[in-house]
Amino acid sequence: MPADPFTPGEVSAMDRALDLAARGVRGANPLVGAVILDADGATLATGYHRGAGTPHAEADALANARAAGADVTGATMVVTLEPCNHTGRTGPCSQAIINAGLGRVVFAVGDPNDAAAGGAAALRAAGIDVASGLGAGPAAELNARWTAATAERRPFITLKLASSLDGRIAAEDGSSQWITGPEARRDGQRLRARVDAILAGTGTVIADNPRLTARDADGGESRRQPLRVVVGRRQIPEDAAVRGSDGRFLQLAGHDPAGVAADLYGRGVRHVLVEGGATVAGAFLQAGLVDELVVYTAPLLLGAGTGSVTGLGVHTLADASRWRWDHAAGGATAMVGDDLRLRLEPEPALIRNNAKDA
Amino acid sequence: MPADPFTPGEVSAMDRALDLAARGVRGANPLVGAVILDADGATLATGYHRGAGTPHAEADALANARAAGADVTGATMVVTLEPCNHTGRTGPCSQAIINAGLGRVVFAVGDPNDAAAGGAAALRAAGIDVASGLGAGPAAELNARWTAATAERRPFITLKLASSLDGRIAAEDGSSQWITGPEARRDGQRLRARVDAILAGTGTVIADNPRLTARDADGGESRRQPLRVVVGRRQIPEDAAVRGSDGRFLQLAGHDPAGVAADLYGRGVRHVLVEGGATVAGAFLQAGLVDELVVYTAPLLLGAGTGSVTGLGVHTLADASRWRWDHAAGGATAMVGDDLRLRLEPEPALIRNNAKDA
Repeated sequence: MPADPFTPGEVSAMDRALDLAARGVRGANPLVGAVILDADGATLATGYHRGAGTPHAEADALANARAAGADVTGATMVVTLEPCNHTGRTGPCSQAIINAGLGRVVFAVGDPNDAAAGGAAALRAAGIDVASGLGAGPAAELNARWTAATAERRPFITLKLASSLDGRIAAEDGSSQWITGPEARRDGQRLRARVDAILAGTGTVIADNPRLTARDADGGESRRQPLRVVVGRRQIPEDAAVRGSDGRFLQLAGHDPAGVAADLYGRGVRHVLVEGGATVAGAFLQAGLVDELVVYTAPLLLGAGTGSVTGLGVHTLADASRWRWDHAAGGATAMVGDDLRLRLEPEPALIRNNAKDA
Repeated sequence: MPADPFTPGEVSAMDRALDLAARGVRGANPLVGAVILDADGATLATGYHRGAGTPHAEADALANARAAGADVTGATMVVTLEPCNHTGRTGPCSQAIINAGLGRVVFAVGDPNDAAAGGAAALRAAGIDVASGLGAGPAAELNARWTAATAERRPFITLKLASSLDGRIAAEDGSSQWITGPEARRDGQRLRARVDAILAGTGTVIADNPRLTARDADGGESRRQPLRVVVGRRQIPEDAAVRGSDGRFLQLAGHDPAGVAADLYGRGVRHVLVEGGATVAGAFLQAGLVDELVVYTAPLLLGAGTGSVTGLGVHTLADASRWRWDHAAGGATAMVGDDLRLRLEPEPALIRNNAKDA
């Protein structure tokens, strides 16, 4: 191995792969980008992972190379995460790389998922040159919360809030339909369609009688439905919409967010969308179990009514729950119809605190 | 006059002038953009108004033409507002246009300001060809609130809020310094430096003892200081920072926002920045007297504490105070350090309601 194990072409390809990775969406799977280089360091194809159920970045790049008629024999793949070695919803990437005849793979960080790890070893066993560590810092940071959730054997958890400019999710009289406009609600439906479970508290279910289903643009229910999870001990009416008729309804009496997360992980849930209400949101936030915060802000003021989050246990400003804008995965801010969508992730300090407490 | 009074070059120049106008900032003066065309319809120079105390769009465009060495004799100026005819902080634009030897002026809408009107007549009297109405719709909409304020003989009023993601301006124990970061606070200082008066309620002044002065980037007080206005009957301590020593302090016992606005207009104030607290903000909002809403949103959650706005009188969602994102004048959203700055203006319905009530 030379003094510098990576060529200048690989270094710039990793930057590009990181940019590509950031185009994906957060959830059950990490954000991953890939670039295929020829022997001269020229780009043959690129790819990235668009979210659970879609091709991995490596498979996407290989498909794009095929579509472009590029010969990838002996080529180098530069990818932000160790290629997986397991057959999930898609086949193992390590095998696809071997089958395609690539000569070298450069990846940033190893796969923390036990079931998926071993890709590097499989590639080496097939005679492919493998190097790692290039771009490891930014690659690790890009998926820090996903990696933490995977290590803790719990789902990745997205909290969705939809509030007025002054942080209200309902007016004084309880009216809340609809604070956000149709485009934002459709955007929320697209988010629902990506997750494995949608979670709400009994209070919200009794007050609003939501279906908690994923719907298509035309309002019909999507073919693939997430599990509908209601947490809390209060009795849900027999005719509550959330019960549905497909058996994908679950009530968990336990309120403890860590217990709920562990239970759902055991049921195969890898991405949970917490939809409300304010008390459930506060409980997951206080437990440090929110990995992604999606806030739809409607351009209106209410001046009174229900706040979007309660029970955080924050008495003074110094103890505030601190976040940072998530510029990856679709960007921190986007206009969605008349509403503004904000995306944030916890300050890294919160990740460290969690690790310390664990 | 031909069937279509405007050339294709003038039509596209007006679109460009409108885009240029939107680069300015809202306040005492309207947003205005200008484009100078030669006889072939080619652009000789452009200009726009950057805010009170800076050159008008016409003067800016003429200066840019001079700087570029362009000969504007006989040229056409396309401008979004009727050139002014009075000497304010800058000289009359009508005279500058006459002096420069232009042959034609196309403007979108007339100047509603009595003191500034008469520009078209002055231009015509000097033998310049004048046409108006091109782009009148968007030009009027661009400055709808400024025009309404001018017609009502009251200042243009900007309300600034700085809150957490969940709409809190202070934590449960009252701590509020600082919810937003240093860059957002500096941005707020730049906003202060542009206005004629900064307004707060006695509650905020007694609780926080703010100076309500405009400060430079280095923290020193700016040379030009807005009037510091405190509204309410409660006694302000003799040693309150807001009193200062420059005589630019004023306490108004009246709470009525319309009365306060009229009083300040009579003192020559054309742009007021309402800084707090929640009660004063609510009073100006409820009176329909907020023309521009600037919200600094910090990436943190408090879950309890003081809401950003109270006393709006909104009981149910249908009666919410409705706004729209202001994409002009610096844009609706901008990251300012770690905080997000949002800018909105009232829904046009609110303007109509005001007109109806008046």
